[in-house]
Amino acid sequence: MKLDFFQSTLNSIKGNIWLEGLFGLEKENIRVDQAGNLAMTPHPEVFGNKLKHPYITTDFSESQIEMITPPLPEIGQAIGFLETIHDIVCLELQDEYLWPQSIPPILPADKQIPIAQYDEDGKEDREYREFLAQKYGPKNQLFSGIHFNFSYSEKLLELLYRKANSQVSFDEFKDEVYLKTARQMLRLRWLYVLLYGCSPVVDPSFELRCKMSPYPIDSNVIALSIRNSCYGYRNFDDLYPDYASVRSYKASIEQMVNDGKIAAPKELYSPVRPKFIHDPDHISYLEFRFIDIDPLTKAGISTEALRFLHALALHGLMTDEPDDFGPKAQHHANRYHTGVALYGLNSTPFLIDEERQNVWHKTQTIIQQIIQLFEELEINQTEYSHSLNQALQLAKKPLNRKVYEVLSGVVKDGYVPFHIKKANEYLDDSRNKSYQFHGLEDMELSTQLLLREAVKRGVLYEILDQKENFVRLRKDGNIQYVKQATKTSLDNYASILAMENKLVTKKILTEYGIRVPKGLEYASTDVAKADFLIHQGKAVVIKPNQTNFGLGITILKENKDDETYRRAIDIAFEHDNTILIEEFIAGKEFRIFVIGDEVVGILHRVPANVTGDGTKTIRELVELKNQDPLRGKGYRTPLEKIQLGEAEAMFLKQQNKDFNAVPASGEVVYLRENSNISTGGDSIDFTNDIPDSYKHIAVLAAKALNVVITGLDMIIPDASAEATDDNYAIIELNFNPAIHIHCHPFQGKNRKLNEKLMDALGY
Amino acid sequence: MKLDFFQSTLNSIKGNIWLEGLFGLEKENIRVDQAGNLAMTPHPEVFGNKLKHPYITTDFSESQIEMITPPLPEIGQAIGFLETIHDIVCLELQDEYLWPQSIPPILPADKQIPIAQYDEDGKEDREYREFLAQKYGPKNQLFSGIHFNFSYSEKLLELLYRKANSQVSFDEFKDEVYLKTARQMLRLRWLYVLLYGCSPVVDPSFELRCKMSPYPIDSNVIALSIRNSCYGYRNFDDLYPDYASVRSYKASIEQMVNDGKIAAPKELYSPVRPKFIHDPDHISYLEFRFIDIDPLTKAGISTEALRFLHALALHGLMTDEPDDFGPKAQHHANRYHTGVALYGLNSTPFLIDEERQNVWHKTQTIIQQIIQLFEELEINQTEYSHSLNQALQLAKKPLNRKVYEVLSGVVKDGYVPFHIKKANEYLDDSRNKSYQFHGLEDMELSTQLLLREAVKRGVLYEILDQKENFVRLRKDGNIQYVKQATKTSLDNYASILAMENKLVTKKILTEYGIRVPKGLEYASTDVAKADFLIHQGKAVVIKPNQTNFGLGITILKENKDDETYRRAIDIAFEHDNTILIEEFIAGKEFRIFVIGDEVVGILHRVPANVTGDGTKTIRELVELKNQDPLRGKGYRTPLEKIQLGEAEAMFLKQQNKDFNAVPASGEVVYLRENSNISTGGDSIDFTNDIPDSYKHIAVLAAKALNVVITGLDMIIPDASAEATDDNYAIIELNFNPAIHIHCHPFQGKNRKLNEKLMDALGY
Repeated sequence: MKLDFFQSTLNSIKGNIWLEGLFGLEKENIRVDQAGNLAMTPHPEVFGNKLKHPYITTDFSESQIEMITPPLPEIGQAIGFLETIHDIVCLELQDEYLWPQSIPPILPADKQIPIAQYDEDGKEDREYREFLAQKYGPKNQLFSGIHFNFSYSEKLLELLYRKANSQVSFDEFKDEVYLKTARQMLRLRWLYVLLYGCSPVVDPSFELRCKMSPYPIDSNVIALSIRNSCYGYRNFDDLYPDYASVRSYKASIEQMVNDGKIAAPKELYSPVRPKFIHDPDHISYLEFRFIDIDPLTKAGISTEALRFLHALALHGLMTDEPDDFGPKAQHHANRYHTGVALYGLNSTPFLIDEERQNVWHKTQTIIQQIIQLFEELEINQTEYSHSLNQALQLAKKPLNRKVYEVLSGVVKDGYVPFHIKKANEYLDDSRNKSYQFHGLEDMELSTQLLLREAVKRGVLYEILDQKENFVRLRKDGNIQYVKQATKTSLDNYASILAMENKLVTKKILTEYGIRVPKGLEYASTDVAKADFLIHQGKAVVIKPNQTNFGLGITILKENKDDETYRRAIDIAFEHDNTILIEEFIAGKEFRIFVIGDEVVGILHRVPANVTGDGTKTIRELVELKNQDPLRGKGYRTPLEKIQLGEAEAMFLKQQNKDFNAVPASGEVVYLRENSNISTGGDSIDFTNDIPDSYKHIAVLAAKALNVVITGLDMIIPDASAEATDDNYAIIELNFNPAIHIHCHPFQGKNRKLNEKLMDALGY
Repeated sequence: MKLDFFQSTLNSIKGNIWLEGLFGLEKENIRVDQAGNLAMTPHPEVFGNKLKHPYITTDFSESQIEMITPPLPEIGQAIGFLETIHDIVCLELQDEYLWPQSIPPILPADKQIPIAQYDEDGKEDREYREFLAQKYGPKNQLFSGIHFNFSYSEKLLELLYRKANSQVSFDEFKDEVYLKTARQMLRLRWLYVLLYGCSPVVDPSFELRCKMSPYPIDSNVIALSIRNSCYGYRNFDDLYPDYASVRSYKASIEQMVNDGKIAAPKELYSPVRPKFIHDPDHISYLEFRFIDIDPLTKAGISTEALRFLHALALHGLMTDEPDDFGPKAQHHANRYHTGVALYGLNSTPFLIDEERQNVWHKTQTIIQQIIQLFEELEINQTEYSHSLNQALQLAKKPLNRKVYEVLSGVVKDGYVPFHIKKANEYLDDSRNKSYQFHGLEDMELSTQLLLREAVKRGVLYEILDQKENFVRLRKDGNIQYVKQATKTSLDNYASILAMENKLVTKKILTEYGIRVPKGLEYASTDVAKADFLIHQGKAVVIKPNQTNFGLGITILKENKDDETYRRAIDIAFEHDNTILIEEFIAGKEFRIFVIGDEVVGILHRVPANVTGDGTKTIRELVELKNQDPLRGKGYRTPLEKIQLGEAEAMFLKQQNKDFNAVPASGEVVYLRENSNISTGGDSIDFTNDIPDSYKHIAVLAAKALNVVITGLDMIIPDASAEATDDNYAIIELNFNPAIHIHCHPFQGKNRKLNEKLMDALGY
């Protein structure tokens, strides 16, 4: 069946809807020791059962980790997810790295290569791997790569269907769309390999065999993409599925199995595979399998390369194709593919398969066509334009391709040391970004941390509302809706409402014998002023009922003078219709995070500050402190950079200092009065430094309000003394406490509240 | 001990803080049959165990209902609570009334008067009543009255304590305050009786005995307050407790018991009783026991009378007292009290107890003093001023006292028919106000209804935040926090958040195979317009994501024309940054209220309308319809009055009508397009008129979101047909649905959702 889209389609379906779809990635990475030898250790136990973990499993070898993202609505998110899995995995490895190259590291003898271990349920998986080792040799199985799973959005498909006025059903129409895309991608895949292929050399321990020759070949061969070449891992026979229709495709593969060429459909190593997930008779998505690991990118693939591949697929769909894609045409496409893989390092014009046009010229022409297509379709997305332009530049200046940087690195450092160095860089980056979920950086850090833990535990998640940080978790029938990480089904609504109402909270705590700042609420200036008698001589805080940034608050430590008292009341009433006069309790404020019966983290916040060394200026000290990877801007990191702004200058001025002052060695200089993290404050973990007696009170307070998850704020005048009935006060219980501040404090341990939450949620 | 407050107190403690305190009421009402005979039926079973119900029990007789309010922060609330108990009780009686008079109704012979029945736990209570019947005669026990429990606010007491510079402890100081108040009230109680006494005659079946005479007296006696006179129920002996201190008070009563004058302290029928609740050694509050039931007020006492009594107590506290309140002074006060009770019907000046001043002059002087005291204390509260002025007017024109209205009614109708007529009026009023909790009218009707049910079931409640409609319920260890009647601990927080997010709700329902309007969300005008192809030819609603009053919504029933479609999108975007294009589903919208597995109410709303009779104008029909006691203004009633405003005029104009048009008989004329209750719409109960198949879907939807309490909105095109997969749609689930609309619909049954909620909460 032939599916051509005419000018009318181009005229009527416009805009970025063309980019909508679902994008998933699978990546294999071999675990190596620090010398670059294949790791002989088992798959990390923390990731549980390989057959059940949706994101982290093994491929052929026990040491070949496979990372799988779910289908995601944006390429950036898919790569981010992949990078996040990568981070999670490599942080769990002990003295091992993830090998950042499609070509294997230093391998032992065939028999010592550990095939993936399974329990009883994985018997078939093990047997199939043993069959593959037998048939193709275990070393060949260790070629690693990236697969890209791609589907068009249903909306786009529906629009195309309406426009095509097709006689077939919508499901059949979608099959046609995917089959055309597959055929076109098979024809054009060489172009992707030409620009982004990156497996140029092998380690001497690897025995290269070309499928055309039964003998090992000199391992000094250098090529653009050995993995995609005839030396790569592939079927022994030339196999040509029939891509004309789903029925003929399935029949042709069945024939191969019947002919004994492959043991099962999955043994057909086609560079593009239609996938049947929801319905055995209709294609759900396409899998592109010819992507080399990019050693220069932690995730193994750049967004530019992947967006180019996506654009190439769209180009294929929207471009008329030759009538035929029979064995001859497929053979031709395969020769082109392997030819480019072998000879693509030539940066000068070259011909493949006696084509008259040189490859570079042809490449540039096609990319220009894609750019033009995007213009006609009114696709207007910076990332895609950037990606297409980058591809065009690479076609024009082939020496700028990454493969050359890899080659020069290998030449300089050696094959293994170069890749180990890269792996080590990525490990450092993973450590520095351990608070982050790549691709979801616009979500709250608490949610990013929770989702990291979900990925680690193999809990499926779905983002229900990204702006709202509303997600759904699911594993083994346990479905949980979670908003902002700590709003969960564990708490009942009435308790949330009680926490939300400060007066109610205080009333309940008081009934439980828990100390809260005593106080009175006033809606009338006159009544508040008349009550001077009551508050006279006591240390009080006079404040608006609702206040931001501490505006309108006066602390009267003695409250002897009626005049001052009355002014403080007027000031408070300037900010709200209701004010509170509460006893003032001096002491440090601690955030105590409770889950169920347990205090899981205690934090104290300190205003933005630097500690002098006797030589550096405040400005220099701030710049130094701001280099901490935990400090950033705009709440995307656990801590914020200290500013050198007006507020800080003013505050220093009160201390007769400026940014150029040189504090004495050990002198702590504060740049802000308030301790908010958002203005550069430090978070200091006190979880183990507060007597248990306060923790018991915190848990009792949570019980009093019948809450499971809460972050409560307690003032403790002397944290070295045990709690009595009277030497502390609880200010409030927060029903949506942040967790990231406890996971990545400025000072102290990661209290792993994301793990604790996932435990509490039953995962 | 003598406690005098000097000018300094008056100067320094100012304002309405003087009115702060706690106010409780207890009222006895005898149940009578429709002929005015003492009811011989048992106490209504619905109120459960008499010993455990905090609000509704019996006094001496099984037919003598006692209603008890908790201590409340305002006199209006206390009387409102009492009236609400009254409503609840009388609506549960079968063909019986609550007898609105302190003097008993028609009584049978002594032996037939049923003494209150108790189970095994109430053995002592029963025995004590039998002892009283023996000693005083059962008829005397049936004098009924009102007790007023009163305490000063702790804040006022603290201020007084500070000002008094007292040498004693705060607790002892408070005792002094209460004892002084008690002594002064004992001295001045005659004044209250003089103005508000209201038990002037008895039924011939009642045998009046004066304690000074062992023989029955002519029952034709007429007096101001027979109950407060020597004919009333009182101790045989003149008993004079020692009110000088708590210790002497307790010792003097113990002496009376030891002397055999009374069996226990509770047998001392003092008109003012100090009460010891929290601490046996210190007074918690005072009980004033000399209040006659006011037959002209449903609650049995008016707010004016009670506020006057409160003012009298404050006057007593703030006025210097004579040194002595020994037996002689008490005897004098008692003679004054009984004298006024017997002779107070004189409206001309009269002397009691050889006092030189006439009573009316003395009364006026004291009220003037109170008014002056309030001025000096800067108490500024309209209700109290009104109350004091009313008292002053009564003192000036004694014939305006209520007792005369009662007497003239008795003369006209007869003693029993007059009171039965009143009881009947009150029953009608109770029926008409059965949606209301008196004194809490500013709370939501849903909460008022829930609290009524709490009172009925003997569930203690506390208002935690009146503005927020946040209450706490408590019975037998089951504590529940409830906000706005339907925000409870039964629902988990995550489900609330899922309901709150329309997109999430729709996603989940769709996954459960539940039909929701299909639709797409747009944040961009261009994308929405480009999607014409998708929506073309379908009936769609184009609307802002968030909308009020239906602004910005366009319904396109055919959607053929790109131009119109584009305009509708522009209009929607004028109201929000995000718009929805949803399929349009024609049909009636129903509110389905689900609790757990059950649909407990289904309601359909109809725009404001009248039905013609061929003669009345629309204006007249509206006025007639608005007479329904369920219709009011400002959301204090289940339905709102239909307005005759601009909007209604405009809408009629579209139909070529105005307010003076006369609709044909049976013609329904709508005055509004929208069906909101707030604009005079009708609520129509459909609970039994919707096939179960829709109810099952509603319960499934609640299950899908894991919610217990929800009001979901479903569109049903044809409610006579069973539900299929496709002939309905759920619009949304509300997590805070109103209950009152199901309890008091315009048309249909009370679905008693307050009862259902209390069941669900485990009460």
